[in-house]
Amino acid sequence: MSLMITNGRIITAGEDFTADLFIQDEIISAIGAHLPMQADRVIDAAGLLVMPGGIDPHVHLALPTMGTISSDDYTTGTRAALFGGTTTVIDFVTQTKGHALHAALDEWRMRSDGRACGDYGFHMIVTDLNSMTKSEIAPLIRDEGITSFKVFMAYKDTLMIDDGRIVELMNEAKRHGGLVAVHATNGEMIDALKMKFCSEGKLTPLYHYFSQPEITESEATARFARLARATGAVSYVVHMSSEGALNAVRDAGRRNQKVFAETCIQYLLLDAAAYGQSMDGAKFVMSPPLRLQKDRDALWSGIDQGTVQVVATDHCPFTWEQKLAGKDDFSKIPNGGAGIEHRLELLFSEGVHKGRISPGRFVEVTSTNAAKIFGLFPRKGSIAVGSDADLILFDPDEEHVISSSTHHMNVDYSAYEGWRVKGKTKTVILRGMVAVERDELCVKPGFGRYLKRNTVSGVI
Amino acid sequence: MSLMITNGRIITAGEDFTADLFIQDEIISAIGAHLPMQADRVIDAAGLLVMPGGIDPHVHLALPTMGTISSDDYTTGTRAALFGGTTTVIDFVTQTKGHALHAALDEWRMRSDGRACGDYGFHMIVTDLNSMTKSEIAPLIRDEGITSFKVFMAYKDTLMIDDGRIVELMNEAKRHGGLVAVHATNGEMIDALKMKFCSEGKLTPLYHYFSQPEITESEATARFARLARATGAVSYVVHMSSEGALNAVRDAGRRNQKVFAETCIQYLLLDAAAYGQSMDGAKFVMSPPLRLQKDRDALWSGIDQGTVQVVATDHCPFTWEQKLAGKDDFSKIPNGGAGIEHRLELLFSEGVHKGRISPGRFVEVTSTNAAKIFGLFPRKGSIAVGSDADLILFDPDEEHVISSSTHHMNVDYSAYEGWRVKGKTKTVILRGMVAVERDELCVKPGFGRYLKRNTVSGVI
Amino acid sequence: MSLMITNGRIITAGEDFTADLFIQDEIISAIGAHLPMQADRVIDAAGLLVMPGGIDPHVHLALPTMGTISSDDYTTGTRAALFGGTTTVIDFVTQTKGHALHAALDEWRMRSDGRACGDYGFHMIVTDLNSMTKSEIAPLIRDEGITSFKVFMAYKDTLMIDDGRIVELMNEAKRHGGLVAVHATNGEMIDALKMKFCSEGKLTPLYHYFSQPEITESEATARFARLARATGAVSYVVHMSSEGALNAVRDAGRRNQKVFAETCIQYLLLDAAAYGQSMDGAKFVMSPPLRLQKDRDALWSGIDQGTVQVVATDHCPFTWEQKLAGKDDFSKIPNGGAGIEHRLELLFSEGVHKGRISPGRFVEVTSTNAAKIFGLFPRKGSIAVGSDADLILFDPDEEHVISSSTHHMNVDYSAYEGWRVKGKTKTVILRGMVAVERDELCVKPGFGRYLKRNTVSGVI
Amino acid sequence: MSLMITNGRIITAGEDFTADLFIQDEIISAIGAHLPMQADRVIDAAGLLVMPGGIDPHVHLALPTMGTISSDDYTTGTRAALFGGTTTVIDFVTQTKGHALHAALDEWRMRSDGRACGDYGFHMIVTDLNSMTKSEIAPLIRDEGITSFKVFMAYKDTLMIDDGRIVELMNEAKRHGGLVAVHATNGEMIDALKMKFCSEGKLTPLYHYFSQPEITESEATARFARLARATGAVSYVVHMSSEGALNAVRDAGRRNQKVFAETCIQYLLLDAAAYGQSMDGAKFVMSPPLRLQKDRDALWSGIDQGTVQVVATDHCPFTWEQKLAGKDDFSKIPNGGAGIEHRLELLFSEGVHKGRISPGRFVEVTSTNAAKIFGLFPRKGSIAVGSDADLILFDPDEEHVISSSTHHMNVDYSAYEGWRVKGKTKTVILRGMVAVERDELCVKPGFGRYLKRNTVSGVI
Repeated sequence: MSLMITNGRIITAGEDFTADLFIQDEIISAIGAHLPMQADRVIDAAGLLVMPGGIDPHVHLALPTMGTISSDDYTTGTRAALFGGTTTVIDFVTQTKGHALHAALDEWRMRSDGRACGDYGFHMIVTDLNSMTKSEIAPLIRDEGITSFKVFMAYKDTLMIDDGRIVELMNEAKRHGGLVAVHATNGEMIDALKMKFCSEGKLTPLYHYFSQPEITESEATARFARLARATGAVSYVVHMSSEGALNAVRDAGRRNQKVFAETCIQYLLLDAAAYGQSMDGAKFVMSPPLRLQKDRDALWSGIDQGTVQVVATDHCPFTWEQKLAGKDDFSKIPNGGAGIEHRLELLFSEGVHKGRISPGRFVEVTSTNAAKIFGLFPRKGSIAVGSDADLILFDPDEEHVISSSTHHMNVDYSAYEGWRVKGKTKTVILRGMVAVERDELCVKPGFGRYLKRNTVSGVI
Repeated sequence: MSLMITNGRIITAGEDFTADLFIQDEIISAIGAHLPMQADRVIDAAGLLVMPGGIDPHVHLALPTMGTISSDDYTTGTRAALFGGTTTVIDFVTQTKGHALHAALDEWRMRSDGRACGDYGFHMIVTDLNSMTKSEIAPLIRDEGITSFKVFMAYKDTLMIDDGRIVELMNEAKRHGGLVAVHATNGEMIDALKMKFCSEGKLTPLYHYFSQPEITESEATARFARLARATGAVSYVVHMSSEGALNAVRDAGRRNQKVFAETCIQYLLLDAAAYGQSMDGAKFVMSPPLRLQKDRDALWSGIDQGTVQVVATDHCPFTWEQKLAGKDDFSKIPNGGAGIEHRLELLFSEGVHKGRISPGRFVEVTSTNAAKIFGLFPRKGSIAVGSDADLILFDPDEEHVISSSTHHMNVDYSAYEGWRVKGKTKTVILRGMVAVERDELCVKPGFGRYLKRNTVSGVI
Repeated sequence: MSLMITNGRIITAGEDFTADLFIQDEIISAIGAHLPMQADRVIDAAGLLVMPGGIDPHVHLALPTMGTISSDDYTTGTRAALFGGTTTVIDFVTQTKGHALHAALDEWRMRSDGRACGDYGFHMIVTDLNSMTKSEIAPLIRDEGITSFKVFMAYKDTLMIDDGRIVELMNEAKRHGGLVAVHATNGEMIDALKMKFCSEGKLTPLYHYFSQPEITESEATARFARLARATGAVSYVVHMSSEGALNAVRDAGRRNQKVFAETCIQYLLLDAAAYGQSMDGAKFVMSPPLRLQKDRDALWSGIDQGTVQVVATDHCPFTWEQKLAGKDDFSKIPNGGAGIEHRLELLFSEGVHKGRISPGRFVEVTSTNAAKIFGLFPRKGSIAVGSDADLILFDPDEEHVISSSTHHMNVDYSAYEGWRVKGKTKTVILRGMVAVERDELCVKPGFGRYLKRNTVSGVI
Repeated sequence: MSLMITNGRIITAGEDFTADLFIQDEIISAIGAHLPMQADRVIDAAGLLVMPGGIDPHVHLALPTMGTISSDDYTTGTRAALFGGTTTVIDFVTQTKGHALHAALDEWRMRSDGRACGDYGFHMIVTDLNSMTKSEIAPLIRDEGITSFKVFMAYKDTLMIDDGRIVELMNEAKRHGGLVAVHATNGEMIDALKMKFCSEGKLTPLYHYFSQPEITESEATARFARLARATGAVSYVVHMSSEGALNAVRDAGRRNQKVFAETCIQYLLLDAAAYGQSMDGAKFVMSPPLRLQKDRDALWSGIDQGTVQVVATDHCPFTWEQKLAGKDDFSKIPNGGAGIEHRLELLFSEGVHKGRISPGRFVEVTSTNAAKIFGLFPRKGSIAVGSDADLILFDPDEEHVISSSTHHMNVDYSAYEGWRVKGKTKTVILRGMVAVERDELCVKPGFGRYLKRNTVSGVI
């Protein structure tokens, strides 16, 4: 089975040129001007951008949390991702305290295998590190291709682990070629504020915002960076939302240290004004919360400067009914929002079209950097001979409007309802197979494969 | 005329894969596994890296300075560059105060045209900005493809211009799509120290070092960054040598500002210990001077962090006899050193082999970033369909020893004499033509072309 | 002649206690509970604060500038100062380029001697440093007690000197026990902006503000600090107005360097909103201009942190008629404002009463620190046995309203018109003599003495 | 009972003058030239400095820790303090987890009351904050005059409390006029390093140093500062030892925040070279450990800049026999060293005589600032009418040698053995009573009084 894509403007992290692209089975085989090969199918990409399929390294599908389950499962979530040009996602397995890491992985594989439309991998969230679970790190890296381990500095009693355990995990991950990722907010400070607001009867969604001030994120980010400095581990900060947190990474940079940073599309585009005075703000209740204009400015600048390497989504949607669990108390609103489908289009529209980033940078932060950091490169994130033919054909000029009435995510509202976006994913190819075309999904659940990832070095 | 390069490991700023490469005339035409085309010549690159030809955006060939002329002219300089894998250089035209910019360009074109073995372009050094010369900026950009303008914050009476003129130049360059580059050291402070040391009879080369302390560079860099901030101009700091200067750029980063930074290979590898107590230190007399280990550490880190985008050479050699002009007074030693030939090999050996940078980063800082910043991309700095076929075939494992007895630069000593280097440029291709092969030059003076460059945006 | 002040609450930089105070002739002789001495006169200070007379180290009386003369001369200026509790001022002698420093001093002494009501000293502004004028530094320090030298980094052609001359001056001042003060704004950047606005017809007072953005001050302050670092000179930044400039001093602090900083009362209390859209803004045209709320916050914090040691006024008033010289062009508005009379009362009201600073800090920044930095301590700035009996009796609770109809400065408007202030200077004593009492001046012009100051060390 | 001290050079935080000083009973009554009062006793202080008695706000007397008890009790400790000119100490009460704060206070009062030679107060160390113990904060402040509460960010399971409890404590302390002090090192990181070194058999005292790298202190200091920022509490960092920690406070300063900082005399004078390779290094085992020359430089600079307000001792001595408990394992060496006796003389010799600080700054950091920060001012720390007559008569020029054979502390070695010191405490007066004279103690155990302290505001 072969496929030829002709006349597209091919954009990768490093290059920008027009050529034909020839795919043999699942793999890119040749790139050239007027390639002489015969293909089973030819797609004319004249006028379109041909870019690596997006990689979203931060999603939560079918996540059990706060007494409910995030509303996109592996089928609906990866399907929506494909519609938006994201061909690979990395989800998080959450260890249950007192149980083995492998047990959680088994559970997550059970939930995901055979159900995904797009390719997927897993990070492992370590909530309970002891001699037993520590001994699981090496085999997870070696045998399961799980090379990234996430810790929480918040959510006491359920997810949070203490600094000493983070240090141990860093040492262990480093020894075996893994990295440590972090949800960096100071849970203790947040809990104190939550208690305070609750005791004062301040229970609207707006107080979700006030209970997680910037300083809770900048503190934890600075601390995590110093732990990484002390251990020499490869380190990665997920969903950075504030200037203060970015500055903590910049401070580490001044110590000649490298800390990888990921922001999410919503932190670049939305701000805390969304919380308003009513329950409607619940749509935006996520952690960290939306911040201010100055934070958005800083994060865009971080991308431009190469200090923020990844734009993800932290996709973790809940239906309005689920959100209503917290209608009388913000602390009961399930935390999370939807974004998996619109990340690329929104970033292209707001970033490339507005001159904030180049097309090459767009590819870097939506795909290539994640592949490099997390051990998927050059198989993913690349348009190169030998790479998986994960491609999107993107019309840079087509305008469309985002709406929950047309999106494919399993959630009945949209944070971007009515937004006019310039740039549209037209055709999506996953491992040589056309997966989305003419607004139709062309692959079945189960087409998506589990990805074992390589060890990482921190030098990308 | 066509050329096929087979089985090479192709490394670009973004990709890393093995494939064949087909070149039609001067241009890359196809990249693929087992390409079916027939070529006039086939080169087997199995076991070799195929990378974009190096771009050195900071060289001074046949430069009249301090009563003498730098000892490599356009023929010997670009020839040595080719031997080391650098296929393009950007030199500097120096305006003479009181005269037109175009007059200087004419003079430089006279000296260079028809003589270069490799491709070349020019930056324009503005030493005297007034309404007349300001009006030359736009036509230089539009008609001559000179899109970068350099200013000196040192060398009073000859090169230095004041802050007000820098601001004006920034405004003008910005208006027309140019950028402003800077030699950022505080000339006034340096002059005061030079006078002091001279008056104290401290005249050995070591005092060249002491007369330009780090603070003279960090001050001027910080000032230049603020001028750029105030004007919004695209800005570029040449030959950054110190942690203090890098921190000035990092400070600008904290203000969400982007300032491009270039270091040179010698600032990464050598330090001030080289000045010693004898005249031998004259070999290392350049401005800025070599610094300390902590500065080298910071600059390597700056590359890793993406804060330093370019590694150049400031190639400006003088023979030992020329250097002896300052045997009794360091201030009379012609400033400059040789490096054009060994930049890539040294950086690969010390950077890639020692795990400090990835092969992709190596390509970025030796070639692609300079092309993007200075308006040569995607024609140069890229291995992509449609780009100039400027390529090097590089054996990553071959060890060799640097010596003035074997190098091709016109200077009778080497800053790296006896250094054992791992990684060697084997074959160099410039616009599809084999330019160096089996340690022989295969092109003639005049093969190198003058490059008109595109306007720049500062978003790369 | 002796004077007893009973029952006052005595506040100095370090102490806060209630006692009697006995003055013999000009000097404080004893402090105690129920002192047994008999005095020629007794003043009951029960309920009042007894504090050192204010020292304003930044005033311009009878200053010839911009084709006019500042409207307070040595008589009216020091009289107004006394009414507000300031017993000592330090004015600035301005060298004329091409002439000797001594010539300027002679001129200033001519204008001031025999005319002042309060004590006064001089800083020397060096506008033209050469071997001749450099040789005047040592005798000025030794013979005239002028131990502080100010330079301008702005006002090209009239006041500005280049960095090299600043370095030389620093070296010379350091050698002889003097310090170097600076007007730290980047004149080149400002001139470029002025030209731009003028060419665009933007000529209202508001554009005075826009022509001196924060970055012009932070740049020059950072540069000056680095020059001081390189030379080791004692350094002092006058009229700091912005957060950016304060941060430049904080950056120097991080290098373990000490740079003294002075702000002025107007930068703590007013902001750029005052410029408005009309000519009325001319009242606030001074350099640097008023800034933003964030700058005021930072400067208050700098005082609290001990990073800003002095609150002065830069008193340099012009009548409304004088200001009208610039009614069609902001660049022709004489630069300066009035403040000499209200500094203490405003700072007490806004600082001490609002809990931002302690009474001891109030005394430090209005009097003691200036005395220590500029070589007047312990003669001035102190309530101690042997010190000059320069004292104010201050009612901390009396409220009054500031108005040009009641103030004593020779200017027909007030920047604080209608401000309600809590705290009032009731009685002022200068060298043991009651100088102000019941809103009446009790001394004659000529009572004020010229002060020779001691050498300085920078360690206070 | 009255006492006259004649002709001394009186130095306070703010003043420096020569006068007589008259003391009536316990209180300073008058200061003047040739005071006419008759006194029961007259001491001629000609040639001597008269300064406020030292306040050491960080001592541990008779502290039960690590299975032993610090070797100076309230009698020997305060006696040694008096010999060195320190008339007041503030010790720490340590809550036992699970028990009330008051219970610990009772225990400490039991141990101290009736035994001290000098005056003393207590901070309260909170190790277990819950609703019960939180309710004790207000009465401790109001009734017991304990207005400072210390927390540990290290020593898990015994002393450490989590960030959430710190936040709660800050809120509570702030509400009632108290402050929160901190032992700021990241205990988790330290424990991980200790475990690592122990597992590697690295057990000499040198590894005490390596197990607490600078980053453990800078991290915790930065975190604590952010907690204080979030709550608005008055905050104080004890025994700061490193540049990194100082920079964390400087960073807070840049946010316009004030954090009080204390260093100890040993961190200014000694460095990690003392740990050497043998057990002898145990003498210097304290937490934080001694650091590097660069840290000493930064801390001296912090004093000069006013960023470090207090020089204390953390006096907590152990005899050599006690130290030997860790002869096979550094982690078993009792942590602490002796310093209470020599703080003033060492700081005067190394600080004032070497030109690093002024005499006024010396008084500030050894006495006045601690009094102001901790609610003892103006009763203590001041030479003013109405203050306690706590005074030292100090010969600034007398040289002497420190030795364990002559010191008064109950420990058989000295960190400063053989140091030649310039400046000697000759006579010490506590509340009007001569306490030390001619190297003899003139007061009895029990003379020292317990001090209730006032509430604090953070504005000093």
